Amino acid sequence: MSRIGANSSKYDALGYNCWLGYHKLDNSRLIKEYVKWCKNIIRSEDSDVINTALDELKNGIHGLLDINPIISVEPVMKAYLSIGTFSENDTLDALLETEEKEETGEEGFIIKLAETDEESILIIAGKTEKGLLYGVFSFIRAIQTQNNLENIFGIEKPANQLRILNHWDNLDGSIERGYAGKSIFFNNNKVIRKSDRIRDYARLLASMGINGTVINNVNVLKFETRLITSAYLPDVARLADLFREYGIRLYLSINFASPMELGGLPTADPLDEGVREWWKKKIEEIYSYIPDFGGFLVKADSENRPGPFTYNRNHADGANMLAKALKGHSGIVIWRCFVYNCMQDWRDYSVDRAKAAYDNFMPLDGKFDENVLLQIKNGPMDFQVREPVSTLFGGLRETNQVMEFQITQEYTGQQKHLCWLVPMWKEILDFDTYAKGKNTFVKRIVNGSVFENKYSGIAGVANIGDEANWTGFQLAQANLYGFGRLAWNPDLTSEQITEEWVRRTYSNNSEVVNIISEMLLSSWKIYESYTSPLGIGWMVNPNHHFGPNVDGYEYDKWGTYHRADLRGIGVDRTSASGTGYAGQYNKEVEEGYQDAGTCPEELLLFFHHIPYNYKLKSGETLIQYIYNSHFKGVEQAIDLKNKWLSLKGMVGEELFNHVKGRLEGQIEYSKEWRDVINTYFFRKTGIDDEQGRKIY
Amino acid sequence: MSRIGANSSKYDALGYNCWLGYHKLDNSRLIKEYVKWCKNIIRSEDSDVINTALDELKNGIHGLLDINPIISVEPVMKAYLSIGTFSENDTLDALLETEEKEETGEEGFIIKLAETDEESILIIAGKTEKGLLYGVFSFIRAIQTQNNLENIFGIEKPANQLRILNHWDNLDGSIERGYAGKSIFFNNNKVIRKSDRIRDYARLLASMGINGTVINNVNVLKFETRLITSAYLPDVARLADLFREYGIRLYLSINFASPMELGGLPTADPLDEGVREWWKKKIEEIYSYIPDFGGFLVKADSENRPGPFTYNRNHADGANMLAKALKGHSGIVIWRCFVYNCMQDWRDYSVDRAKAAYDNFMPLDGKFDENVLLQIKNGPMDFQVREPVSTLFGGLRETNQVMEFQITQEYTGQQKHLCWLVPMWKEILDFDTYAKGKNTFVKRIVNGSVFENKYSGIAGVANIGDEANWTGFQLAQANLYGFGRLAWNPDLTSEQITEEWVRRTYSNNSEVVNIISEMLLSSWKIYESYTSPLGIGWMVNPNHHFGPNVDGYEYDKWGTYHRADLRGIGVDRTSASGTGYAGQYNKEVEEGYQDAGTCPEELLLFFHHIPYNYKLKSGETLIQYIYNSHFKGVEQAIDLKNKWLSLKGMVGEELFNHVKGRLEGQIEYSKEWRDVINTYFFRKTGIDDEQGRKIY
Repeated sequence: MSRIGANSSKYDALGYNCWLGYHKLDNSRLIKEYVKWCKNIIRSEDSDVINTALDELKNGIHGLLDINPIISVEPVMKAYLSIGTFSENDTLDALLETEEKEETGEEGFIIKLAETDEESILIIAGKTEKGLLYGVFSFIRAIQTQNNLENIFGIEKPANQLRILNHWDNLDGSIERGYAGKSIFFNNNKVIRKSDRIRDYARLLASMGINGTVINNVNVLKFETRLITSAYLPDVARLADLFREYGIRLYLSINFASPMELGGLPTADPLDEGVREWWKKKIEEIYSYIPDFGGFLVKADSENRPGPFTYNRNHADGANMLAKALKGHSGIVIWRCFVYNCMQDWRDYSVDRAKAAYDNFMPLDGKFDENVLLQIKNGPMDFQVREPVSTLFGGLRETNQVMEFQITQEYTGQQKHLCWLVPMWKEILDFDTYAKGKNTFVKRIVNGSVFENKYSGIAGVANIGDEANWTGFQLAQANLYGFGRLAWNPDLTSEQITEEWVRRTYSNNSEVVNIISEMLLSSWKIYESYTSPLGIGWMVNPNHHFGPNVDGYEYDKWGTYHRADLRGIGVDRTSASGTGYAGQYNKEVEEGYQDAGTCPEELLLFFHHIPYNYKLKSGETLIQYIYNSHFKGVEQAIDLKNKWLSLKGMVGEELFNHVKGRLEGQIEYSKEWRDVINTYFFRKTGIDDEQGRKIY
Repeated sequence: MSRIGANSSKYDALGYNCWLGYHKLDNSRLIKEYVKWCKNIIRSEDSDVINTALDELKNGIHGLLDINPIISVEPVMKAYLSIGTFSENDTLDALLETEEKEETGEEGFIIKLAETDEESILIIAGKTEKGLLYGVFSFIRAIQTQNNLENIFGIEKPANQLRILNHWDNLDGSIERGYAGKSIFFNNNKVIRKSDRIRDYARLLASMGINGTVINNVNVLKFETRLITSAYLPDVARLADLFREYGIRLYLSINFASPMELGGLPTADPLDEGVREWWKKKIEEIYSYIPDFGGFLVKADSENRPGPFTYNRNHADGANMLAKALKGHSGIVIWRCFVYNCMQDWRDYSVDRAKAAYDNFMPLDGKFDENVLLQIKNGPMDFQVREPVSTLFGGLRETNQVMEFQITQEYTGQQKHLCWLVPMWKEILDFDTYAKGKNTFVKRIVNGSVFENKYSGIAGVANIGDEANWTGFQLAQANLYGFGRLAWNPDLTSEQITEEWVRRTYSNNSEVVNIISEMLLSSWKIYESYTSPLGIGWMVNPNHHFGPNVDGYEYDKWGTYHRADLRGIGVDRTSASGTGYAGQYNKEVEEGYQDAGTCPEELLLFFHHIPYNYKLKSGETLIQYIYNSHFKGVEQAIDLKNKWLSLKGMVGEELFNHVKGRLEGQIEYSKEWRDVINTYFFRKTGIDDEQGRKIY
């Protein structure tokens, strides 16, 4: 089993192996079917990634079917698995149709049965070794979830070109917005040299089809700036080597002011010849260490980070300067759009942070080089539990775009609350922007098909750390898994993903699958129901963002307000009387939002200032809705725990107790939310709960 | 001039010398009078403190009168100064009456003119060298403030026995609630070895009559715990040596769990024989390094610090255990009463943090050893801009008490707002507790006279750091000075202290004296007027405590609530319908507080929940009062700046600009306060300002 899973057995009971902890299946009929081909694996190529694929295949077969397949260059059985790249492997090439090979694309794969009188060959093949690797993991997944193999025969390829994780890890080992321990990459201002954990992580990512990873925080401070110097590049290159074995390219977040901080130049002006030359040389240096280096992620002119504004240049000037230097190396620039005024005066009702990304980047549409991608947070604010879709999706037409999701639960319970984010991401990806008429879904913009972008993709801010179960709350692994699966195929349903995840992580037992699926599928709305109501957001404690604080940001400089008074609450973002944010959407979308009557109620307070006695579609007044949802949310949180308790004996004891503990904590936190929110609004309105429940 | 003022000239223009920056007087008539005796100083004793006094005297005379006095054992002039201790110096002894000598006491002094036909001798004498030192500083002060010398002839002695500063300095150099740079004692987990700055600080303290200093934070964490080990004691002893030259004893804050953390014992139970033995040995060790070590300051069972509660022992058990070990060395235990439940549930209206200190310590009255002092914060909460007096003052009858004031402006503007605290301290010291009938003022309890305590005194949490002007905001030096003067003599008026301070620090020019005095004298009420209203407190940003945040602590665990809803605001602390805190006062005091009609209005919301339409004595409603005071406070802050601007050319340019900058900042901060508070209550009540001023 070579290098796979050095820590597997040690921490298996705690969830260390995630969805790759292979345990022997107990369905003898299916085992028999699978085993038929799995006793012999033919491989005729030799490369790091192909070796990885072979290792993974052997490991999966051994774990799930309890056999040790024979690896051979020529078949020794009548039925066997043949794996490889059809571009390199003539035998495979001959077994496939030309059409099939074309359709497979760069990172896709074919799984196909080729039967003759003599032999039954199960082919797993890609044009590239990455494609093959994904095919192997797909095959394993099918077995692991007890799928009939016929169901996976065919061609599969990723919808999105770039499927990348962003790690907000700092060199001191801390993780910004990390809730699962310390960094697995860095400690004590050094790159960690022990590679087991990092390799195990690369496996997890590759198993979902992730093909890129940014290893350091977008806020690049003193030490992190030096990652692109010879002091750190040898160590960074070692990480790149590890990831490369799993088909993952490494990217770095960089400090826009590096030419000054590292190079001693007097400026970082992107139009300055010396600065351009400095970056060119620097990038050459990076590629001398990491020949397949992915490129840069850049947070510039955002929350006090340096950027081109200092020199009266715009974002395109800044990004293109880097892009030109990267282009010859096939590197890209991922430029973040999280740009807004973080010194806003709460007294100024005319400024609206929600408008900032659009206002900053729309004028630059078409001005970016072809290897620049703009990375856009899913909503206009910042990863709240409920936001409308960013107006840049459907706004930008001539710019490569990357969707940025936050897997780590900064505003969604910090891995202390169960909050499965896939249903939220699905809503966003399936949102119709009407950019090119009806059915211009976000997912089709993000995959580059609507505007025929050269580059595009999905990024997720990682939720992992060095805790034994990777994510702090073991059930939060499902967010990482779900992100990866949606990045590969956004057309998967939430239900498909939960089922897959539970089967792979826990058990194929239908009761386990059903109960955990129900828990995951309901969890986002439960969390939403007892936190801030109807899209208003931000009612959290400042800085750390955990726990309720209705006025926490209300009189602060961050542009995040609810504007509640004794009569009503909500931010008027209409064009008629408000900030005009709604007008940034395409007409068909905008119309829905401009009017409170047609605005989706879950976003009512995001777009409108609404009196407490306003009648919702349910017939409840707004204030009664607030009370009801908060009382109900706590009951549902209790129900989550009860559902879990019903699984006693059906899941491992350590995990059972761990999850139980978290869910018990969630109940207490949810009560705190309920009581603070209800009391706040009761004190403000003086309106009693119709049902006379306890409001403090 | 020896060791005095190594940094004097360098930073004089920035305020480094505080009130000891001697500049030549310009009143020739007075100079002539002073010079008469100052040309020749007789000294016949030799000791560190007497040498200090002599140095200070020479230095003061040189600076103020521009002469270098002749020091001699026998007089060389007909008029001269004779300084010394009458207990050691026979000549002086003979010149003084027995009654005078008795009255002077341990730390007092006599300044007296002895005239014969031949000689005119100006005597400055104490029984002890400390007394002499204070006499010298008093003499210098008289000259510096252009007082006629006859006015200071007589006997003066400190009202309070213990006059001590508490430094919340940590070994890493940070200062908890410090607003003037880093620690002058510690850096990088070491004691600072350069002594100039520390000696200059000792001078400042001695010039006010301070006789004790605790050098480390009451929160004693990992490294600070080790201050009482051989790793640190040699360095601590060096600090003690420096302070000793100025008559100041050094104290340490200790960790109650030291026997476990340092000694490896399994317990810190104060009744455990091993623990007692450990402390006894430890204290012997400390005294082997510092023979006049003052003793321990202890924060135990408070805000998560360890203490006797862990072992089901009470505070008396804990304090007495330490006291017994210290007694043979003349050491004392100062035990803090800041004990409350810091994990309160805001939903529980029955718990009242204000009651905690009294509830914890009253049952122990009379149970403490004679060398234990309870250190009690001035109010029942925590150094708010307005609080009633702690009920322990006037409650405790058989216990040594120390008043704890906070000089550092944690809740009172953090040395970014001008807030001179002496008028507040005066109100507290002059408060009549009725503990032994009318006129049982707090200051008479604190000085030990009411209950004939063996030990008593005043402690102040220091406001200094390593900034050039010591206090960040140079005008905040006046708080340090005022504290010292009140500790010496609480009967001084606020006006006397401002006048002294301005004359010594700035100038004897009457316009300067009048304007700066006006600014200082009005500043506390100005700050109060635009921050939280009528004694309610706590409307600050959590943790750092700067800037407005009305609900910042409202739903938190700290027991600090305002309970505002749409109808009213305030905490009902009456016995009839509230928490009963008012009932902890002696009857005559309690009666005033129990009824809103008789409650002093500045404390109205501390004791009562009041509807917004309640009419105050001024005729304003409560809500209109809130608006008015906040609008007015900003105007007054602007007026402070204008007053200062009128001094242009009359004070040094650097200081002029520094203070101007701070006052400009204060105006902006005061507007932020005004607008947040007014908007909060307008949103909550919907009641318009009668004058139609701008509320956001």
